[in-house]
Amino acid sequence: MPTEVKCLASIEDNKYPVPSTIARRDLRPDDIEVKILYCGICHSDIHHVRGNWGPNGYGYPVVPGHEIVGKVFRVGADVSKFKVGDSVGVGCMVDSCQTCETCKNDRQQYCHSTTFTYGSLDRRDGSRSYGGYSETIIVTEKFVLSIPESLDLAAAAPLLCAGITTYSPLRRLGVRSGWKVGVVGLGGLGHMALKLAKAMGANVTLFSRSQGKAEDAKRLGADHFLLSSDPEQMDAVAGQFDLIIDTVPYNHDVNPYVTALVPEGSVVLVGYAGPLEPTVNSTPLVLRSQNLAGSLIGGVKQTQEMLDFCGQRGIASDIEVINAQDLHYAYERLRKGDVKYRFVIDIATLQV
Amino acid sequence: MPTEVKCLASIEDNKYPVPSTIARRDLRPDDIEVKILYCGICHSDIHHVRGNWGPNGYGYPVVPGHEIVGKVFRVGADVSKFKVGDSVGVGCMVDSCQTCETCKNDRQQYCHSTTFTYGSLDRRDGSRSYGGYSETIIVTEKFVLSIPESLDLAAAAPLLCAGITTYSPLRRLGVRSGWKVGVVGLGGLGHMALKLAKAMGANVTLFSRSQGKAEDAKRLGADHFLLSSDPEQMDAVAGQFDLIIDTVPYNHDVNPYVTALVPEGSVVLVGYAGPLEPTVNSTPLVLRSQNLAGSLIGGVKQTQEMLDFCGQRGIASDIEVINAQDLHYAYERLRKGDVKYRFVIDIATLQV
Ligand SMILES: [Zn+2]
Ligand SMILES: [Zn+2]
Ligand SMILES: [Zn+2]
Ligand SMILES: [Zn+2]
Repeated sequence: MPTEVKCLASIEDNKYPVPSTIARRDLRPDDIEVKILYCGICHSDIHHVRGNWGPNGYGYPVVPGHEIVGKVFRVGADVSKFKVGDSVGVGCMVDSCQTCETCKNDRQQYCHSTTFTYGSLDRRDGSRSYGGYSETIIVTEKFVLSIPESLDLAAAAPLLCAGITTYSPLRRLGVRSGWKVGVVGLGGLGHMALKLAKAMGANVTLFSRSQGKAEDAKRLGADHFLLSSDPEQMDAVAGQFDLIIDTVPYNHDVNPYVTALVPEGSVVLVGYAGPLEPTVNSTPLVLRSQNLAGSLIGGVKQTQEMLDFCGQRGIASDIEVINAQDLHYAYERLRKGDVKYRFVIDIATLQV
Repeated sequence: MPTEVKCLASIEDNKYPVPSTIARRDLRPDDIEVKILYCGICHSDIHHVRGNWGPNGYGYPVVPGHEIVGKVFRVGADVSKFKVGDSVGVGCMVDSCQTCETCKNDRQQYCHSTTFTYGSLDRRDGSRSYGGYSETIIVTEKFVLSIPESLDLAAAAPLLCAGITTYSPLRRLGVRSGWKVGVVGLGGLGHMALKLAKAMGANVTLFSRSQGKAEDAKRLGADHFLLSSDPEQMDAVAGQFDLIIDTVPYNHDVNPYVTALVPEGSVVLVGYAGPLEPTVNSTPLVLRSQNLAGSLIGGVKQTQEMLDFCGQRGIASDIEVINAQDLHYAYERLRKGDVKYRFVIDIATLQV
């Protein structure tokens, strides 16, 4: 018998989530039921419920949330990796085909048949997937992550999306001690990129259009702060960065960041997906063998690696915990970039 | 005493090279005098003499040519790596600062003070550098390459620019057996990319706007041919290529090639440097962690590695040898893409 659980759900197009209920499926043999304690609020959640990424093909309600942390509450008969009471996380994906080339290479995020944590259809019963703004979630153990004991559970929640989104390109591009890494934008993604790059031994510069971010950037560990709207400051760092992680969530001119790279260096876009205006000039790319890349979250294995890395280094997100009833307020503040640096919903407040 | 040598030189802006003479410096202790046998004609030569890349800052005459093969004729007192009679090559560079980070990492092509083979100033005496459309050239031994005995000297000449330009990104992106590699355009660069990628074990597809290239692509070793102007054929290969080397020398839409990549795959531009129109869409870059890159020749060490690789595998350019007096005719045909696949000047015909 499916279980009714409380949640925050968007019940029609372009409406923010409100208190509601959904049904969670019965446990399958490989399933884990997670009692959710905290769920981070990601920009994607807002884009999704606002229909910025097109209509929700599978209809309403939509329950957002893919930065999920909680405790194992029940396990299916075949579950071997987790036991009741374990601290666990669920990120952007809850299933994939398991058989394609990308799945076999632990890059389930590129599978043509990924089941995303919300807004997808379950591979086996065709039901809609509902995210973490909810009392519980039921997920095959293959997609459940272990949260290191050393981490605060609320602050660990944003690692499941913001953490892996920035960790993955830092690793793929091979950041190592002594590298000069730039981080563009100091928000949920940017502050994680900064902390992770520092922990990997990089010398980190934070680029922002707002001088007001300078003090916080330093507090978070940045070695340098650079006002990206000042052409003189940008000119002064031409040719210096091994890697720049660009977390800006809207269209902007990426060419100055390419100019700031060393030969064979890379700019990696993780915030904005769409046409790049003004257009990209290939001249510096060619003359200095540079790279303009993007990056999408990370696979299950790499997500666990990132969590273990964060556990060892004591790295988590700077968060502002909110009650469920303050979601609308949090969404409005997030849209204005007014949060340091991630909202996390205390799911216990759904009970009230 | 400087030596007068015959050459082909552009004597004013936007004029094709004509028979002329220049002075070559006396041998310095670390210099090698090369008696030039063959010099390839690169697109850069035409761009340069036509002023497409801006005025020639160091004035006229300009002697183009940076795909130079010949025999060591004299060596300076301190030269140890070469002896008279050796088969040698000179590529796009004849000197660099030797002290900067990129020089120390054998990437002299990015040095802020590279002396290019023509159109630059000598680091020590400030004289203009003159290229390989000339009877001799005098170069510090550090920038002289050894040509493997197994290679035909005329066919080896284009390896010094077209060869290294395509070899370098194939290596940097890590091509290995079983990779699917695309090559866009079948000209001087494209035919080298095709041969080199095949020799590295890749399955190679040649993309061209011209169905007429299909037969030659197969003859040169391509596993597949794809008409890039046919959207159906392009759609059919979406998501398939680990790496695409784009050799097209003019602006064109690069987005379809990004679409053709596997997750984490790369498009590398080696032909066109300038604003990319239509603009680049970052959505596939982000959603599939893809990479749009460029590449510029290669360092001295990698150029030698490429020559040795070609020597072992018997790889050289498909060429059409011309007499010096036919240069104008060759330039006109090259501008129309009418050559299979590189013109090489028989420098002996300068003597006539
Ligand atoms: Zn997210
Ligand atoms: Zn799959
Ligand atoms: Zn060239
Ligand atoms: Zn240098």
